[in-house]
Amino acid sequence: MNTGELEELGQQLRVDSVRAAAAAGSGHPTSSMSAADLMAVLFAHHFRYDFARPDHPGNDRFVLSKGHASPLMYAAYKAVGAIDDEELLTFRKKGSRLEGHPTPRQLPWVETATGSLGQGLPVGVGIALAGKRLEHADYRVWVLCGDSEIAEGSVWEAAEQAAYENLDNLTVIVDVNRLGQRGPTRHGHDLDAYARRFQAFGWHTVEVDGHDVDAVDRAYGEADSTKGQPTAILARTLKGKGVEAVQDREGLHGKPLPEAEEAIAELGGPRDLRLPVGGPSAAAERPARHTGHLALPRWDKGEEVATRNAFGEALAALGGARGDVVALDGEVGDSTRAEFFAKEHPERYVECYIAEQQMVAAAVGVAARGWTPYASTFAAFLTRAHDFVRMASVSGSGINLVGSHAGVAIGQDGPSQMGLEDLAMMRAVHGSTVLYPCDANQTARLVAAMADLDGIRYLRTSRGESPVIYGPDEEFPVGGSKVLRSSGHDRLTLVAAGVTVPEALAAADALEGEGIAVRVIDLYSVKPVDRETLRTAAEETGCLVTVEDHHPEGGLGDAVLDAFADGRPVPRLVRLAVRDMPGSASPEEQLHAAGIDAESIAACGRLLVGEAIVA
Amino acid sequence: MNTGELEELGQQLRVDSVRAAAAAGSGHPTSSMSAADLMAVLFAHHFRYDFARPDHPGNDRFVLSKGHASPLMYAAYKAVGAIDDEELLTFRKKGSRLEGHPTPRQLPWVETATGSLGQGLPVGVGIALAGKRLEHADYRVWVLCGDSEIAEGSVWEAAEQAAYENLDNLTVIVDVNRLGQRGPTRHGHDLDAYARRFQAFGWHTVEVDGHDVDAVDRAYGEADSTKGQPTAILARTLKGKGVEAVQDREGLHGKPLPEAEEAIAELGGPRDLRLPVGGPSAAAERPARHTGHLALPRWDKGEEVATRNAFGEALAALGGARGDVVALDGEVGDSTRAEFFAKEHPERYVECYIAEQQMVAAAVGVAARGWTPYASTFAAFLTRAHDFVRMASVSGSGINLVGSHAGVAIGQDGPSQMGLEDLAMMRAVHGSTVLYPCDANQTARLVAAMADLDGIRYLRTSRGESPVIYGPDEEFPVGGSKVLRSSGHDRLTLVAAGVTVPEALAAADALEGEGIAVRVIDLYSVKPVDRETLRTAAEETGCLVTVEDHHPEGGLGDAVLDAFADGRPVPRLVRLAVRDMPGSASPEEQLHAAGIDAESIAACGRLLVGEAIVA
Repeated sequence: MNTGELEELGQQLRVDSVRAAAAAGSGHPTSSMSAADLMAVLFAHHFRYDFARPDHPGNDRFVLSKGHASPLMYAAYKAVGAIDDEELLTFRKKGSRLEGHPTPRQLPWVETATGSLGQGLPVGVGIALAGKRLEHADYRVWVLCGDSEIAEGSVWEAAEQAAYENLDNLTVIVDVNRLGQRGPTRHGHDLDAYARRFQAFGWHTVEVDGHDVDAVDRAYGEADSTKGQPTAILARTLKGKGVEAVQDREGLHGKPLPEAEEAIAELGGPRDLRLPVGGPSAAAERPARHTGHLALPRWDKGEEVATRNAFGEALAALGGARGDVVALDGEVGDSTRAEFFAKEHPERYVECYIAEQQMVAAAVGVAARGWTPYASTFAAFLTRAHDFVRMASVSGSGINLVGSHAGVAIGQDGPSQMGLEDLAMMRAVHGSTVLYPCDANQTARLVAAMADLDGIRYLRTSRGESPVIYGPDEEFPVGGSKVLRSSGHDRLTLVAAGVTVPEALAAADALEGEGIAVRVIDLYSVKPVDRETLRTAAEETGCLVTVEDHHPEGGLGDAVLDAFADGRPVPRLVRLAVRDMPGSASPEEQLHAAGIDAESIAACGRLLVGEAIVA
Repeated sequence: MNTGELEELGQQLRVDSVRAAAAAGSGHPTSSMSAADLMAVLFAHHFRYDFARPDHPGNDRFVLSKGHASPLMYAAYKAVGAIDDEELLTFRKKGSRLEGHPTPRQLPWVETATGSLGQGLPVGVGIALAGKRLEHADYRVWVLCGDSEIAEGSVWEAAEQAAYENLDNLTVIVDVNRLGQRGPTRHGHDLDAYARRFQAFGWHTVEVDGHDVDAVDRAYGEADSTKGQPTAILARTLKGKGVEAVQDREGLHGKPLPEAEEAIAELGGPRDLRLPVGGPSAAAERPARHTGHLALPRWDKGEEVATRNAFGEALAALGGARGDVVALDGEVGDSTRAEFFAKEHPERYVECYIAEQQMVAAAVGVAARGWTPYASTFAAFLTRAHDFVRMASVSGSGINLVGSHAGVAIGQDGPSQMGLEDLAMMRAVHGSTVLYPCDANQTARLVAAMADLDGIRYLRTSRGESPVIYGPDEEFPVGGSKVLRSSGHDRLTLVAAGVTVPEALAAADALEGEGIAVRVIDLYSVKPVDRETLRTAAEETGCLVTVEDHHPEGGLGDAVLDAFADGRPVPRLVRLAVRDMPGSASPEEQLHAAGIDAESIAACGRLLVGEAIVA
């Protein structure tokens, strides 16, 4: 396309953005208008994509990090013929694929859900990493960011990883329109301020007038030809560009244009230009990934093994059997035991250093390209990536997260290192699976099983050694549980998981010695929860005691309620959990101080069997 | 102190670090040894502090961001005479103040809990901001970071804010020992790599040999005299410095020295040098903060007001009555309505731009200096700061967090903007308070009440307008609830909060029209929860339906269980919550699709009264 055609195309994208927001009565047309020329030139001359085959392995990838500018993206979809004008005007309406912020749940051309700012580039880095390091493909990844979102630290975690991994297949385009939601950004139109930062992080940079289509075209060309490092294009633009009443003015973020018809006229009226996107240059099929026989590690009953070790060994074995498995580490692989995988499969191991947001974002990115990521760090530090996990669930992304060093059982390191709210965080994620094994064989089985689930899957592992109580051939279906003690005259059920399973068993032994028969359930699948077994236990024993190395809110105790919150009779319940802020102490001292060791469990059991209220 | 004395002091700190870790059998001596000279020179010549008066308003502030190097800090405490040698050797033992990672809970000289890396500088920025902008005091803030943690994005959010706010009272010292936990860092000993980044973000930088005490002394002096911008000192050091067996070697992170006695001998043996710290130069008392009459905004019953608006107006009024109130915004003050405060009290309004981790860290920092911060953004985006909230609770910090745009009720913007897991996240924080008002007068009262609570206090507000149902003189104690409908023959209790309160009332009206008397409880205090009222309702009505604009896990429904999880009989329960991933739609359509509108609640009530199980 020539200069005039590109400019016309930019105006069309503006007009359609204004029309879509006007039809919806909400949305972000002004944020779309600033980036319209950037988008027009990208799609017309540089983006290589087959809209009829969004799964083509050679397709370039585009991420709209400034997800609120969705009208622009949808206007571009219309211009390429992927959607029609009628659908464009369904924007933000119930049932429409064209949501307020783009998600891949219904739109096959969207790589990842955006709308929480500062996430598009981190995920884009993951996609580019997959292309360059895992697939050795020559597709490019283009990420369009707003300027406001550059304040998010996650952007700099991403910048660091991209430069370190020499991702010259990655270009970020920053739409520097100088205006955030509530007013000017910190750096206004100072393109240098952004360029200095990206350069310091090892990027090539280009500064450009974002409304000069020829200059933008050259900038993209420069990005295309830059080798060995990613490129950041800093584009000076005007928010609301092209409509005098809103252009470069404050107070108009996130609002339809006040006079849409006039604005459309000022922009030259509707057009119906067709945007020809070049197809993927590489015709390659998706690279073959071997699959072979999975030989999980096996342990004998009675051995003492930390579940984190079992995770590491199982993941290494899984990586041997499945070529799609990728491990990501937050610079604690020696502690989480992800390093076992690194030793056997270094080509599929991504060291993300201490940058948990980027670790999870990279997992989302490689998952978007069909890989099966396992990202692991301390359970406590996964809280750092909570917003990324939340957005991954909006994307419908399938990723495995593993949090080690759960609970007070880690001992001396103290509360900063203890995962005590991870179960609450992960359970509240839509569609998640939450697993918490108590022994090595169970851990290995669950590590393998989680690979094939949908959505966010979380496995919680422990630091210290614990006895192997299951044989290596035992099966552990997700959503199941194990009844470890049971008799016809149980007066109480103890529900435990992870480190509290051995404690519950010891408590059951003690109570049995006093003539009190007790059922013990290993609730290794915290979500989904085994409703049938819990209901049966409730009916047969009348009361349940849950025991968890976690704060009392949102964890195992609350999970058990899932079996009863449908109006059926509820058993008497007691939740034993970590109610005080721990300090430093040995693991045994910690469990006792928290009231979740065998002695405390037995004491609670005695009270309950005596029909007492447990203070 | 002269060169030799400073070097001797550094050796003493090393020896005591080795001794403390040896006595504990765990800990991080090698990470302490790299920074020992940096610490010795700082405390001997630059840090101005009265250890007998840690609350002295003119004291400098020191933050050990690399919290795992706690032995070094405790060794310094011994050297200044704040603790004795006997206490030093209680390191990491049960009951000791000297935890694995430092916390201010028992140690008055610790400003903030560390141990989750990348948090010390962000909080230090908050303290420096308080000193410079709020107090106009001349104390300095010194933050000692590791090099690994510079990979955390939060460091760059902090760097951006510090430079933007011209915090020349802030110095970060980066202990570049080149080794992370599992191996070399990305940049090794390349001090320039760090310096370039800090310079690009607007900092003054100094590169120095971290074991040359005179050079370190000069570097601190340069930081002292640098005006208008913060200073980063990049110090080249060796991990395990001074002991050949561990110095600059991999695989020795977080482990006591293998041969402690030999190592101590190699370091020249124990010493008992006394470290003279200069007192605070400013004798100023804590600046007076006015307190006056609080005139909260008032609304009449029947008005339609969004609770976010009530928050903004109440906060502005509170700021007028109390000079200690500070508001922090994540670049959405026009949406959260924090801008109402900004207009009246611009001198106590901190714009943090889109950097939620830094917003919360700055709140922790100003709270450490005795201010009362309110940090607000969309509820969904507070997930970004989860780890900071977690660590704030470890600190025992008192901060107010406000999350707007809760739930599907926001409508068209879609799931990326909807807080649907915030209640779970905030409830699981130790010692937190979680409030969720349904009308404007209630909101205003709670905004005022939360200021004086301990710990993390969270208020959830809504985007859309809702009817004022309480008079302006009604009181709402934290931990209480309101029974809005009640009779002697209620067959069911609806428990609602926030936007579901009007829905529950409408459902109760509908059911009453069918002859089914229903109790309605407004559970505005989600944590602590009003156990007495819930228990009475359970006894009198037999079954409870909880209704929440939140995912089913960890929110209102689980909170209600708190009233019953002590072994007492439990009522029949149903939890209505957001179980599917929403898309775009109007607020009314969203509530209906989620099954939490009046019609859905009434339908559930009919089933329950009919003794049915609710599928």
